[in-house]
Amino acid sequence: MLAFDVFGTVVDWRSGVIAELTAIARERNLAVDAAAVADAWRKRYQPFLDRVCRGQAPWQVLDKLHRAGLDEVVREFALDQLSEAGLDRLVLAWHHLPPWPDAVRGLTRLRTRFVLATLSNGGMALLVDLARSADLPFDCILSTELVRSYKPDPRTYQLVTSLLAVRPDQAMLVAAHPYDLAAAAEQGMRTAFVRRPQEWGTGKAEAPDFSVDIMAGDFIDLATQLGA
Amino acid sequence: MLAFDVFGTVVDWRSGVIAELTAIARERNLAVDAAAVADAWRKRYQPFLDRVCRGQAPWQVLDKLHRAGLDEVVREFALDQLSEAGLDRLVLAWHHLPPWPDAVRGLTRLRTRFVLATLSNGGMALLVDLARSADLPFDCILSTELVRSYKPDPRTYQLVTSLLAVRPDQAMLVAAHPYDLAAAAEQGMRTAFVRRPQEWGTGKAEAPDFSVDIMAGDFIDLATQLGA
Repeated sequence: MLAFDVFGTVVDWRSGVIAELTAIARERNLAVDAAAVADAWRKRYQPFLDRVCRGQAPWQVLDKLHRAGLDEVVREFALDQLSEAGLDRLVLAWHHLPPWPDAVRGLTRLRTRFVLATLSNGGMALLVDLARSADLPFDCILSTELVRSYKPDPRTYQLVTSLLAVRPDQAMLVAAHPYDLAAAAEQGMRTAFVRRPQEWGTGKAEAPDFSVDIMAGDFIDLATQLGA
Repeated sequence: MLAFDVFGTVVDWRSGVIAELTAIARERNLAVDAAAVADAWRKRYQPFLDRVCRGQAPWQVLDKLHRAGLDEVVREFALDQLSEAGLDRLVLAWHHLPPWPDAVRGLTRLRTRFVLATLSNGGMALLVDLARSADLPFDCILSTELVRSYKPDPRTYQLVTSLLAVRPDQAMLVAAHPYDLAAAAEQGMRTAFVRRPQEWGTGKAEAPDFSVDIMAGDFIDLATQLGA
């Protein structure tokens, strides 16, 4: 079976956030560097999660952490003209992000041969919304919410093998982020790295400096390499 | 959103079990009253689950309880000629039961308007197999395994509202069994009773003796009543 990281691997969070913020700014006649805000917001993500994993902050569903990070970004960029409704819309933008162009076609091919699950820090409700809005053909939505933690906590990867009743070597994590793949490999899972050079709009993807089972250019390439 | 009981409500466990047992018996030239065995096996289900809910037995994934019940039925019907492999096949038959004839069409209509989740005593792996084999268009697989209990434990219904981030009155349980609907209503959920008169092959369905929000003849009727 294949477990997929979602933000950055399946969907393009940056374009989605930029589009929503641009729309809000246009409606209110605000001048905002939407790309800079999106990047600053996302950069607050991992430190927030790490504090939860280290037990220094209580677990909260991702929407709440997104909102806390956004409140900081609003101060940093002096965006106080964004109303409460605007901030809520931005947090909700993560529920309907656009998939990468190859995602639906690749997943559809992969699903003919493998069980497909998400394994994401997004909450269950967020992931269900996302799968519906982008028409992502997952067999099963799994969120780290089910263990009230975040990746790379080992328990989040164990969730996949325990709930889907497979041995770790029968499960492969598909992700665009080396730290995620390294943590999955430590739990005995197989690993597929997918390059997403436009995740940060830079054209450059951080490649793993350790051995992975598969290196793929996108989900079509992954499907081909896996014989699907 | 709509949460669905699965065995008996979405899929026809009795025909599925009878078909598998009949196939095994034919291959081994055994004379077996497959319908009687299927009914006897299913009747052991609720008492097993109740012991777990009352804390008198440890929680186990449903496949294990199915196997324990089957071992008793094998003794009762003197079916010792069924090999280990045959017993494993029968337990696995629950992973690919046939849907009721209206199920896929009804769910497909309902999904245009509502988020659809399972809420079943079947384990996650079983439900994923079932949804794949019967092509059931659920947005989300939820199993009582996620709280290591069984219906009608209140925590199993709370799972739906907490993970899908809805108030209880925004969630409706769809089930063919009054006890299940009564327990959901106690948690504040809405309720839809669907008649499945062939669940036990008798032509008779046990109707609720309390008020439910919707009484439906099948999933097509349910979709029509819900405007989907």
